[in-house]
Amino acid sequence: MRVEQELERMGLSVPEVAAGIGSFVPAVQTGNLLYVSGNTGARLYDFRGKLGEDVTIEQGYEAAKCAMLGCLAAARSVLGDLDRIERVVKLLGFVNVGAGFTETPRVINGASDLLIALYGEAGQHARSAIGVAALPGNAPVEVEMIVQVRGSI
Amino acid sequence: MRVEQELERMGLSVPEVAAGIGSFVPAVQTGNLLYVSGNTGARLYDFRGKLGEDVTIEQGYEAAKCAMLGCLAAARSVLGDLDRIERVVKLLGFVNVGAGFTETPRVINGASDLLIALYGEAGQHARSAIGVAALPGNAPVEVEMIVQVRGSI
Amino acid sequence: MRVEQELERMGLSVPEVAAGIGSFVPAVQTGNLLYVSGNTGARLYDFRGKLGEDVTIEQGYEAAKCAMLGCLAAARSVLGDLDRIERVVKLLGFVNVGAGFTETPRVINGASDLLIALYGEAGQHARSAIGVAALPGNAPVEVEMIVQVRGSI
Repeated sequence: MRVEQELERMGLSVPEVAAGIGSFVPAVQTGNLLYVSGNTGARLYDFRGKLGEDVTIEQGYEAAKCAMLGCLAAARSVLGDLDRIERVVKLLGFVNVGAGFTETPRVINGASDLLIALYGEAGQHARSAIGVAALPGNAPVEVEMIVQVRGSI
Repeated sequence: MRVEQELERMGLSVPEVAAGIGSFVPAVQTGNLLYVSGNTGARLYDFRGKLGEDVTIEQGYEAAKCAMLGCLAAARSVLGDLDRIERVVKLLGFVNVGAGFTETPRVINGASDLLIALYGEAGQHARSAIGVAALPGNAPVEVEMIVQVRGSI
Repeated sequence: MRVEQELERMGLSVPEVAAGIGSFVPAVQTGNLLYVSGNTGARLYDFRGKLGEDVTIEQGYEAAKCAMLGCLAAARSVLGDLDRIERVVKLLGFVNVGAGFTETPRVINGASDLLIALYGEAGQHARSAIGVAALPGNAPVEVEMIVQVRGSI
């Protein structure tokens, strides 16, 4: 439970898994890879809308951190313990953008920085940060990830 | 051929693989994972354009179902038999959205629900459903997927 | 070094890895798969903006080729030698689109065609080509990829 203790020390906690409105599950393991569904983390903050219009970069960074907490919740629901994450492999970050907003990496850093704070070198990952036209529930950010875990299925 | 029989029972069938206009192949297997290219299924319906402007949610749901039939066609072209799909791992669904449309999960459910109808628990998957600015040929939906198969390469 | 010699013969070269402005690394290997971060290749050309507005299809094709050179640079930084790529598995191509532009496959072909020129049959890959609302630094194109490599971690 080292990772959850570290989160607590940072004043954060892993939420319960969101009840989705889609026909999918929070995460699926294949071999030693866990594929985590896209999360907005939108239950953890109350701003909505587009970066550059409704939401500031600082709020977007916060939203991306919350989206990662949602991803960790999804991972924990399958793995039982977040310490079983051996390496973060890949993040795909989507930013809900208004016209002219191109600083998507600064927003998605909110998710990436949390992973590195929690897992150190093992939290370093490949990534893309894309500006999209819409996200579920008008959330400002959505993040999905792939992690390598200890113990395969 | 259980899965194709089930499709037939539902009044559906797997189309021939679309001849792409891009320099890519329908699907690639690595180990026991099959990566399926994005499919719009657009040969199977005649509406085009953006959700919330040109296309209703019901049409979008139908388009997502057709996009999944296109993914299954691509998978069959490599695997020979759709019964070789052991577990659906991950879907990435793209919805061509007009201004203000945020109900992307309801649209992509058309693809997800078909997988669950065909494969049951093994059809449950991780997923993201994103709203994008454009899709090839002005299709309303595109879906790509990763499945775990019996028999590795 | 066959692949780099082939690039040289084509008048191309693999750039140094870009210093990212995000909290991520160029690529991560897990098992025999290498996940390469999204690359725009924007240091290799000087046009910026949206397809159909600021950038022509020919320029977009060139940008996609440069984005792939960026992906190859990222892969080389982990693998040491691009000849270690055994099979290209999957590309995800993002095109920065203006209103009404739907020919995203023709743009991303710039990345795909380079892979096939370099790796032949082993360069054939699954792919999606999506039109998005924004990319980092207002680049016209971004490409990420997954390759299967010789020698696992």
